[in-house]
Amino acid sequence: MSTIITLLTDFGLQHTYVGQMKGAILSGFGDARIIDLTHGVRPQQVREGAFLLETAIPAFPLGTVHLAVVDPGVGGARRAIAVETPNAWFVGPDNGLLSASLPESARPAYGGAAEVELPVGVRSVEIDWRRLTAHPPSSTFHGRDIFAPAAAQLAAGNPLESLGPAIRRMTAYPPFRARVTGDGRIEATILTVDRFGNLITDCRAEQAPGARFQVAIAGEVIEGPAQTYAAALPGTFVAIVGSSGYIEIARTNGNAAQVLGIGIGDAVIISPC
Amino acid sequence: MSTIITLLTDFGLQHTYVGQMKGAILSGFGDARIIDLTHGVRPQQVREGAFLLETAIPAFPLGTVHLAVVDPGVGGARRAIAVETPNAWFVGPDNGLLSASLPESARPAYGGAAEVELPVGVRSVEIDWRRLTAHPPSSTFHGRDIFAPAAAQLAAGNPLESLGPAIRRMTAYPPFRARVTGDGRIEATILTVDRFGNLITDCRAEQAPGARFQVAIAGEVIEGPAQTYAAALPGTFVAIVGSSGYIEIARTNGNAAQVLGIGIGDAVIISPC
Amino acid sequence: MSTIITLLTDFGLQHTYVGQMKGAILSGFGDARIIDLTHGVRPQQVREGAFLLETAIPAFPLGTVHLAVVDPGVGGARRAIAVETPNAWFVGPDNGLLSASLPESARPAYGGAAEVELPVGVRSVEIDWRRLTAHPPSSTFHGRDIFAPAAAQLAAGNPLESLGPAIRRMTAYPPFRARVTGDGRIEATILTVDRFGNLITDCRAEQAPGARFQVAIAGEVIEGPAQTYAAALPGTFVAIVGSSGYIEIARTNGNAAQVLGIGIGDAVIISPC
Repeated sequence: MSTIITLLTDFGLQHTYVGQMKGAILSGFGDARIIDLTHGVRPQQVREGAFLLETAIPAFPLGTVHLAVVDPGVGGARRAIAVETPNAWFVGPDNGLLSASLPESARPAYGGAAEVELPVGVRSVEIDWRRLTAHPPSSTFHGRDIFAPAAAQLAAGNPLESLGPAIRRMTAYPPFRARVTGDGRIEATILTVDRFGNLITDCRAEQAPGARFQVAIAGEVIEGPAQTYAAALPGTFVAIVGSSGYIEIARTNGNAAQVLGIGIGDAVIISPC
Repeated sequence: MSTIITLLTDFGLQHTYVGQMKGAILSGFGDARIIDLTHGVRPQQVREGAFLLETAIPAFPLGTVHLAVVDPGVGGARRAIAVETPNAWFVGPDNGLLSASLPESARPAYGGAAEVELPVGVRSVEIDWRRLTAHPPSSTFHGRDIFAPAAAQLAAGNPLESLGPAIRRMTAYPPFRARVTGDGRIEATILTVDRFGNLITDCRAEQAPGARFQVAIAGEVIEGPAQTYAAALPGTFVAIVGSSGYIEIARTNGNAAQVLGIGIGDAVIISPC
Repeated sequence: MSTIITLLTDFGLQHTYVGQMKGAILSGFGDARIIDLTHGVRPQQVREGAFLLETAIPAFPLGTVHLAVVDPGVGGARRAIAVETPNAWFVGPDNGLLSASLPESARPAYGGAAEVELPVGVRSVEIDWRRLTAHPPSSTFHGRDIFAPAAAQLAAGNPLESLGPAIRRMTAYPPFRARVTGDGRIEATILTVDRFGNLITDCRAEQAPGARFQVAIAGEVIEGPAQTYAAALPGTFVAIVGSSGYIEIARTNGNAAQVLGIGIGDAVIISPC
């Protein structure tokens, strides 16, 4: 079995960008197994991409290479990096997208993406494109010109250090957790919305204020947790612990995001009941 | 050549759900060849999914594993099943989605999905997740936690019985056929709509009332069959026998679904002319 | 490493058409490596498809088979062809979609798609389905019934001639270039739009009228070239040389196509500044 390279981007599938990345991977290592995580990250939403990457990783075998590109700063000063952990490799821009490569204890405590020191057991390099190709990369498509060839090198068994010089710090988001206020209320945020219109919050199940709780969102109050999406009558909202351990708001046989007019970044209050 | 596992779901490609299923498959059997049929089944439209699965199967080699998940009842009482036929394996929820695993003679004669007895030559088991993993499955994502590992087991060559206890009945839809009324008219229904806006009915070519016929739909009357989509002037509707043998309504160089305002479940009358 | 077959179509991912093509490929040659370029070509936009194919090819290894289907004339008089060049194989309808298989010098000088003589080093055959299968093809889905089996044959190592009789002429578009007028102005056209709303013109970087230029589009005048998408303030338009060497119009942290109300085929004037 060949090494798996997963792809996560905000490129969509309308143009050939993802196809070109795959061509660049196979040009570098013809036996790579390429698996799409998603290319539907909202354009330039780095934090959404970091969350989607982190929650998808547990499904993959040890030794997988995760290649991710949500890169509003392409061609600018942000570094291209590769990271090696005991479980996996990561390749992408140094803008917080690869936060999942760091244990939660090594990530910022709160706020936005910020630079942190690498902990023991995690190594990282700044990718030097001269180690990969004789052609200078385009300034607009590092996914094809830098990240894909770098991932191919790792999948082919080359050591991390072959990609460039070691670095000691990288950019990471805080762990994806809702904010707990003094009075036991939880201020959560919508991190992503899936095709069913399910609104996935940053509140982990273990943060819930008690065995039962209520969620206030866009004027609705929803009691939870429900055990299944179909637990309520069609057209009813349910609050449920999703498949990655985060509380989400769904609508039985319907689309909660559309009905509520809610999206990424919107606020949710979760309180005891 | 490795065993092929096809995937058909209503998950869309916006989130990483499909990617996570592929990770779970490869975690179970690293040499599986995974092919997407579609992830664009309309949310929770089990019957559309069953039709799309049935019409895609003939393109695949014998011995393919078809993994399908359109599963509004996930986490509830519906069973997770695997089916073995002389030609292929099927894995998914027991809600009619896997109707294609049964010969038409074994399926209900009319109406909605219903339980039927398995005919000779078809074996089925209820999947017991304890045979697949030590971790209890989530209640919301059996695609990743039950169906994908089960499909991986079959692709790896494990016998059907290794997945759980045999069952004798499963749920199936009637064969996809339009209703013929006493006076030679055919009451057909739109089963699915493709990206071109072509409206695909449940009327098979061999049901057509004569060599020429006319289709009444949304106030239009269209004579058929045309031989090609481009047989008429741009902007004209055509009735044509599609690539799976069902009569469909298209618009030359246009989008019939949009122009007619018609979608899944809408009625069509086909009569002699 | 097995031969790669790339797929480019206007089929979308809503129905199982692409999945059925993959099944037909694997039924013919089980070891093929199938890579999607895109299935998001606008319906029946052959010229957009030809451009997207041409610009994706350089990312792939020598010896790749490129299978493309944007085929408004399916079932009609247009031929099904396969082309062999020193670098790659091509399979698809003879309507200009496979223009990339010809060197620019062999293609028409201007205007639309037209028949041209094959140059030395390029060979082509008209595909005869009787060489591929015993079943007559459907009249609506040659992607599955003719092109996929033909591509599988080539990937399996069969010679071009095994697919059908040699032909000496095929249909091609002129090279993708903007029109330079007498007074140094360039009349460009939008060839495609990506998911970010970036408007990609047919004006190659080397056609630009000087080191600096200005682009007039929908009442806006944009000076260029910018070095990166993020070179300007959010909400500003930038003119930039894209990753395939064509000038494109983007909006920093925004969607130029939506804001300008501009799409494929619309006109752009590029002049010195």
